[in-house]
Amino acid sequence: MSVTAAQGFRASGATAGLKASGSSDVALVVNDGPDHHVAGVFTSNRVEAAPVTWSRQVVSDSRADAVFLNSGGANACTGARGFQDTHRTAELVADALGCSATDVVVCSTGLIGEFLPMDRIARGIELTHAALTDHDGAAAARAIMTTDSVPKEAVAQRDGWVVGGMAKGAGMLAPGLATMLCVITTDAVVDAGELDGALRAATAITFDRVDSDGCMSTNDTVILMASGASGVAVTGAQLAEAVEEVCDSLARQLVADAEGASHDIAVEVRSAASESDAVEVARSVTRSNLFKAAIFGRDPNWGRVLAAVGTTSADFDPTALDVAINGVQVCRAATVGDDRALVDLEPREVHVVIDLHAGEATATVWTNDLTHDYVHENSAYST
Amino acid sequence: MSVTAAQGFRASGATAGLKASGSSDVALVVNDGPDHHVAGVFTSNRVEAAPVTWSRQVVSDSRADAVFLNSGGANACTGARGFQDTHRTAELVADALGCSATDVVVCSTGLIGEFLPMDRIARGIELTHAALTDHDGAAAARAIMTTDSVPKEAVAQRDGWVVGGMAKGAGMLAPGLATMLCVITTDAVVDAGELDGALRAATAITFDRVDSDGCMSTNDTVILMASGASGVAVTGAQLAEAVEEVCDSLARQLVADAEGASHDIAVEVRSAASESDAVEVARSVTRSNLFKAAIFGRDPNWGRVLAAVGTTSADFDPTALDVAINGVQVCRAATVGDDRALVDLEPREVHVVIDLHAGEATATVWTNDLTHDYVHENSAYST
Repeated sequence: MSVTAAQGFRASGATAGLKASGSSDVALVVNDGPDHHVAGVFTSNRVEAAPVTWSRQVVSDSRADAVFLNSGGANACTGARGFQDTHRTAELVADALGCSATDVVVCSTGLIGEFLPMDRIARGIELTHAALTDHDGAAAARAIMTTDSVPKEAVAQRDGWVVGGMAKGAGMLAPGLATMLCVITTDAVVDAGELDGALRAATAITFDRVDSDGCMSTNDTVILMASGASGVAVTGAQLAEAVEEVCDSLARQLVADAEGASHDIAVEVRSAASESDAVEVARSVTRSNLFKAAIFGRDPNWGRVLAAVGTTSADFDPTALDVAINGVQVCRAATVGDDRALVDLEPREVHVVIDLHAGEATATVWTNDLTHDYVHENSAYST
Repeated sequence: MSVTAAQGFRASGATAGLKASGSSDVALVVNDGPDHHVAGVFTSNRVEAAPVTWSRQVVSDSRADAVFLNSGGANACTGARGFQDTHRTAELVADALGCSATDVVVCSTGLIGEFLPMDRIARGIELTHAALTDHDGAAAARAIMTTDSVPKEAVAQRDGWVVGGMAKGAGMLAPGLATMLCVITTDAVVDAGELDGALRAATAITFDRVDSDGCMSTNDTVILMASGASGVAVTGAQLAEAVEEVCDSLARQLVADAEGASHDIAVEVRSAASESDAVEVARSVTRSNLFKAAIFGRDPNWGRVLAAVGTTSADFDPTALDVAINGVQVCRAATVGDDRALVDLEPREVHVVIDLHAGEATATVWTNDLTHDYVHENSAYST
């Protein structure tokens, strides 16, 4: 269901021929209203793809009628011609729907530095427009996959209203090669400003805390649209809670499907002086190749955890750090704790808890292990 | 020759039984004077090993008589007992040499979170003391190896004076698992303050610009000792130039021997608004796993270069970036340039040039590719 779980939305997926595999590669999500509120969060990479530049402008007036997405090409680092291609895409979608091109969000994902075959994009717009239904969000979710092995969908059902979403990729602030794209819909009656607030609050503690490989894409986009079709008015807090649930589910699905990973690792920092300290420390650990390779090797190497913690500027006493891995307190007061042989790293999910003894704030960042398959997939992608 | 190339120094290496392999694992370098000047640069990791805490204090008065080094154990995250072990090591060396323990620098490298077997360390001190010669720096260089496949030595011969050095490991600001240890000696007659200035200037543009995997060790140490035994007085500038030559050679040897690497990659940033901008941009690229995996796959993926550049706060226009890889201008004005198929990535050395078109500063940072062997070596190390 995902993006069509909410009333007032139609969606579709189709095959435009952008992918060598012949899989579906274009998707369309349309908001039939009565409201056409939209909010968007985009990559903070300064080298942003043409569709990001375009869509940032589209959502700036908080109104959008549709989102068109393609896999099989990122349309990034494509200069003026790339931007014209995105503009043309929006115009073709607008012509088909009878709306304004400035109300059409465009998202692209795939290889950087190649132009989109616009004849195929045009055909894809025709196909997705013809295939629009109010119940087949799953087809859209499949069409945006690149290196994803499964589509990602989530729904938060509430009393008379719903939030649903789809996503592809492997992160947000720091996605893998595969750009993170996400479209979320709701039929709640909400204020456009509250929509934006709910989306920013949710992404800050979900997608922003998934960090598969420390790299940041040129194309990351999260779009939230509200149709108001349920007729049920909700508060900003109610909306935020449901949007967070959907984002959290999708973010976890991204981690679980990260390229080449064999472990999903939650790095939880406790007793930090501030939430930003907790996030800084957690992110430093999730970006340590040595730590991530150790987890792949089923090695509870807490020394590499401490070495990563020590590179941060967070408030802590370096002699008062505790580390537990999967429930075993392997490090106490920055030195040897319980027997590391007790740590079971066979399960896919790994939980690392770092106690800074510096305050009361906490944060968790998710990442994956560094594996042979990661190297393989990311060394063979474009050759 | 390395540390014994300069007059006034003796050195040795021996086997204390710290390594399972049975290879030599302890080294001693003694400055017989007449001067006993010393300068040191240490890891900026706040979780620092006991020998770093100790040696920082030793060099604070600019005088040292000897450096004792062991591989086979980092003595990091070992708490008060670990510090006592380092202190005891210095005392035993001082007893053997007839000097003060506070003039004995101690360096350790190996696994974090394990105590050193002090009986073997004591035996190692006896052995290295008995083996001291004025010509066998090579034995010391071999004894400090961990995952190194070859010892690293360098000598800069000048008119009547010399600078020589040895190193082990894979980086400085950001070394691999294997801590970077380096001992440099000179027989020039120099001021102790100039010694410190020369060392800091040299490391800042050599070891600090080697970044094998973005991780920072708890044990990194670079020591420079001056004996004055040549009787030749040199200026600070003359000394700095020779020390930089030795550091540059050793840093390049570290890159060439990095764990599991198949390419040495120089990322050169040109036309930056400032040197710090140039370093920030170069370092961002050298820390991109996606870029490093692409080079392993012989894929001249300039999109991943731009994506890494875009995450920095350096001064540049994102639409005016140029990238050349091994002489082929694959990206012009942030979009497609010459045919990427022209790039030959078979040679071990790869040269990436990024032009920011923002000023006149330049900097080069070296790294390695991300390979299956890197994952293998770093997932299997302690298990």
